[in-house]
Amino acid sequence: MNNRKVKVGLIQMACSEDVEGNTAKLEKHIRSAAAKGAQIICTQELFRSPYFCKREDPALFDLAEPIPGPSTSRLQVLAKELNVVIVGSLFERRAAGLYHNTAVIIDAGGELLGIYRKMHIPDDPLYYEKYYFTPGDLGFKAWDTKYGRIGVLVCWDQWYPEGARLTAMQGADILFYPTAIGWHEHEKEEFGTAQYDAWQTIQRSHSIANGVYVCSVNRIGKEESVEFFGGSFVSDPFGRLLHKASHDQEEIIVQELDLSKVEETRQHWPFFRDRRVETSAPIASRFLV
Amino acid sequence: MNNRKVKVGLIQMACSEDVEGNTAKLEKHIRSAAAKGAQIICTQELFRSPYFCKREDPALFDLAEPIPGPSTSRLQVLAKELNVVIVGSLFERRAAGLYHNTAVIIDAGGELLGIYRKMHIPDDPLYYEKYYFTPGDLGFKAWDTKYGRIGVLVCWDQWYPEGARLTAMQGADILFYPTAIGWHEHEKEEFGTAQYDAWQTIQRSHSIANGVYVCSVNRIGKEESVEFFGGSFVSDPFGRLLHKASHDQEEIIVQELDLSKVEETRQHWPFFRDRRVETSAPIASRFLV
Repeated sequence: MNNRKVKVGLIQMACSEDVEGNTAKLEKHIRSAAAKGAQIICTQELFRSPYFCKREDPALFDLAEPIPGPSTSRLQVLAKELNVVIVGSLFERRAAGLYHNTAVIIDAGGELLGIYRKMHIPDDPLYYEKYYFTPGDLGFKAWDTKYGRIGVLVCWDQWYPEGARLTAMQGADILFYPTAIGWHEHEKEEFGTAQYDAWQTIQRSHSIANGVYVCSVNRIGKEESVEFFGGSFVSDPFGRLLHKASHDQEEIIVQELDLSKVEETRQHWPFFRDRRVETSAPIASRFLV
Repeated sequence: MNNRKVKVGLIQMACSEDVEGNTAKLEKHIRSAAAKGAQIICTQELFRSPYFCKREDPALFDLAEPIPGPSTSRLQVLAKELNVVIVGSLFERRAAGLYHNTAVIIDAGGELLGIYRKMHIPDDPLYYEKYYFTPGDLGFKAWDTKYGRIGVLVCWDQWYPEGARLTAMQGADILFYPTAIGWHEHEKEEFGTAQYDAWQTIQRSHSIANGVYVCSVNRIGKEESVEFFGGSFVSDPFGRLLHKASHDQEEIIVQELDLSKVEETRQHWPFFRDRRVETSAPIASRFLV
């Protein structure tokens, strides 16, 4: 097999209340990543603002915008100028009273290849996303970009093997997960290590089960009582960590991936060969007792 | 929630060519585990013999026996005497020319509650299982034992999130995985660490995705060019390691589990609440491109 090298860029950053400032910072970081050779660049989840789902406030719907719309256009211009693929996580206003947590997939020519609407929506103390986001209605998808076939999922999706499987089954070689997850200030000491470890482990398991690269991009920074734990990482098709970012620093991760390793790994660990697909239908049930 | 404590026992051992000797050793270890308070005891995969699938030899079918049959009966007598549940991995002769890799689930009264026939059958250099074992035709199951509701899967099954999911969806609080996996002598130095880590990670991910305990029982010992890597472990419903055995010593692991942690963990991490079951049907396809 020939080497098929691609460089990915993951932008891990903190966000302030200044939406324009956050976007300008992201653009600067994307330029830096591109300057270091990154070809497919992914933002963290909802990079334009603080993680606003920490409370339920109708005024915060004003942060949403149409897709395509101003932020999409800005990323398209940047993608074209830098000749890079950009995966950007945005708050989508689809219609009055109908909003989604949506990633845009922009090809290196600036074309909007498609969108992914977050399928699994959490609702936990300080993560009141079911108030803001209607669950995605486009399913799990993969796209052929200039630099490789990729899948995109968002944050809470990462806990679901089904999402990773259905995306890999469409031929994605890399799964990107824009994310916003952190520690509650009263839980960090007791549970912080286990929470980060579970979060990384379940995503590395998607690499292993499916023989794909996983790139997970998380925010950092203390926002009220939540400390977003960063730790963005890249894992290879056997789940090995290629890079793990810090928990508290802005980082522009540029990592080279060899996409030929997907096939090599799957030849040595041929899990797709042996799936018992004729027995999988009950997975579409809520529960079996 | 009330505490619901149960002690599990995992028997990690080496096997010789002496089938009676292996069985006698297992019995001794099961007695030791029961003496330490173990209530549900699980063997490694195919404990009666060396891992015979390292070559294709029709004479080796003679190792198989009917279920119920001599080994099943022997484990039933032991389970009744010690008042323990036993999960035992056997080579099943179902009919002339039809063999399975089967686990028996024996309740503490000695009753044969059911059997699980390994669903995913590997075939890799030195693991020529497709020659010996017909893939299971009983699907994924869970059983109410005297000490808790359990699921049983076998070795290669552990790489498949679908098997763990379908078992957990039947209400199993603990998944047991009898296993035989090791390092090839020419691969250990370069890949050994990554192979053990991937093996443990994918199974810990089943704990995380499903909020269940996982008990994985592997053999040790050098058998020709394969070094079985032991490292049997128990993970809790958030994927934390409660115990990890050595890679080269026989061990009788007795670990207390609190089954009420299953519900507590799922309340804090409510993944079952948000599954997009209406989008899961394509998992029953071989691939989607």
